[in-house]
Amino acid sequence: MKLYDYLPSGNSYKVRLLMSYLERDYTHVPIDIHKDETHTADFLAKNPAGQIPLLELDDGRVIAESNAILLYLGEGSSFVPDDKFDRAKMYQWMFFEQYKHEPAIAVARFIRHYAMESRAEDLPNLVTRGNAVLAIMDRHLNDREWFAGDAQSLADIALYAYTHVADEGGFELSAYPNIQKWLLRFVQHERHILITDQPSSG
Amino acid sequence: MKLYDYLPSGNSYKVRLLMSYLERDYTHVPIDIHKDETHTADFLAKNPAGQIPLLELDDGRVIAESNAILLYLGEGSSFVPDDKFDRAKMYQWMFFEQYKHEPAIAVARFIRHYAMESRAEDLPNLVTRGNAVLAIMDRHLNDREWFAGDAQSLADIALYAYTHVADEGGFELSAYPNIQKWLLRFVQHERHILITDQPSSG
Repeated sequence: MKLYDYLPSGNSYKVRLLMSYLERDYTHVPIDIHKDETHTADFLAKNPAGQIPLLELDDGRVIAESNAILLYLGEGSSFVPDDKFDRAKMYQWMFFEQYKHEPAIAVARFIRHYAMESRAEDLPNLVTRGNAVLAIMDRHLNDREWFAGDAQSLADIALYAYTHVADEGGFELSAYPNIQKWLLRFVQHERHILITDQPSSG
Repeated sequence: MKLYDYLPSGNSYKVRLLMSYLERDYTHVPIDIHKDETHTADFLAKNPAGQIPLLELDDGRVIAESNAILLYLGEGSSFVPDDKFDRAKMYQWMFFEQYKHEPAIAVARFIRHYAMESRAEDLPNLVTRGNAVLAIMDRHLNDREWFAGDAQSLADIALYAYTHVADEGGFELSAYPNIQKWLLRFVQHERHILITDQPSSG
């Protein structure tokens, strides 16, 4: 397998993190989104949406959308709950992540990280929306350790990616004690990796 | 089961359509989003994200996010491909729908339908983004009848909901012949229902 990937991307990091937890080998293909390498003719032929991460199987077929890649890789593992309702809640939080969380928290981080003055006026609204998302998450974790069912699932991995770097988007995680405890549970995994860790393979 | 639902919502219609295809009975609970009925204390206790559709099981547990509801209801049916790769592609298009399609095409429709002058300035950008999405879909359908695998799947149902009313958002579907043919395949289903059809139960 090849993973087309941009190291600072939380969406890509989700996949690297799951690969590490599952001890899967892959070839890492760095793509620089700031050099528009997601919009070359070659890349668009693989993913017309022009986005990383992109997983390429050994037969050349590809899977796009970070959470679809998680579902593909995670099938049959402990990260997908056996219980049908818990599984539905996992899906629910994964769609919540892409619909509500990423468009606010990841975009705020992106604008601040790259000092994009052209989009600075979007920040106050993104911060308001992002804090609403974090408040929902914190309340959900009030009486539970993980988002869906009783164990760490793909929903946690999806939500972790941009939450643990939310401070880079201007969010104060100290206001969310349940989220902070949940973040620490990840670091306890023996195969945890950081978003800045260069993949060893490829 | 109860479905908390707003009739003109494409996200709700997805669920009604799948319920009809699967011949499932449910109680329909109309929620008027324009009277802010998704933000009452009672509703927020069920879904803190303040959104419809929301599925309530007979034991009171709830599932939010339209595509998570589709996955819950569709499990084990012909609308989920048996093949692992086809299933991954189904997930891919469902996340594409929520991340790229709905935020452009559904939002443009919403702004135009309710003549929201306050957001009219967003329309040109939404129309550009929506047309890029429709072009990707049309190209994908160039040599295939359905989005994932060889049969109609949950990905098709998710994408159908707002695509078939895209004209209400200012999109010209005549520019997308493969999409037009794909839309017609839905109408041929013997249990097809329209977005305006009042649910018979409940």
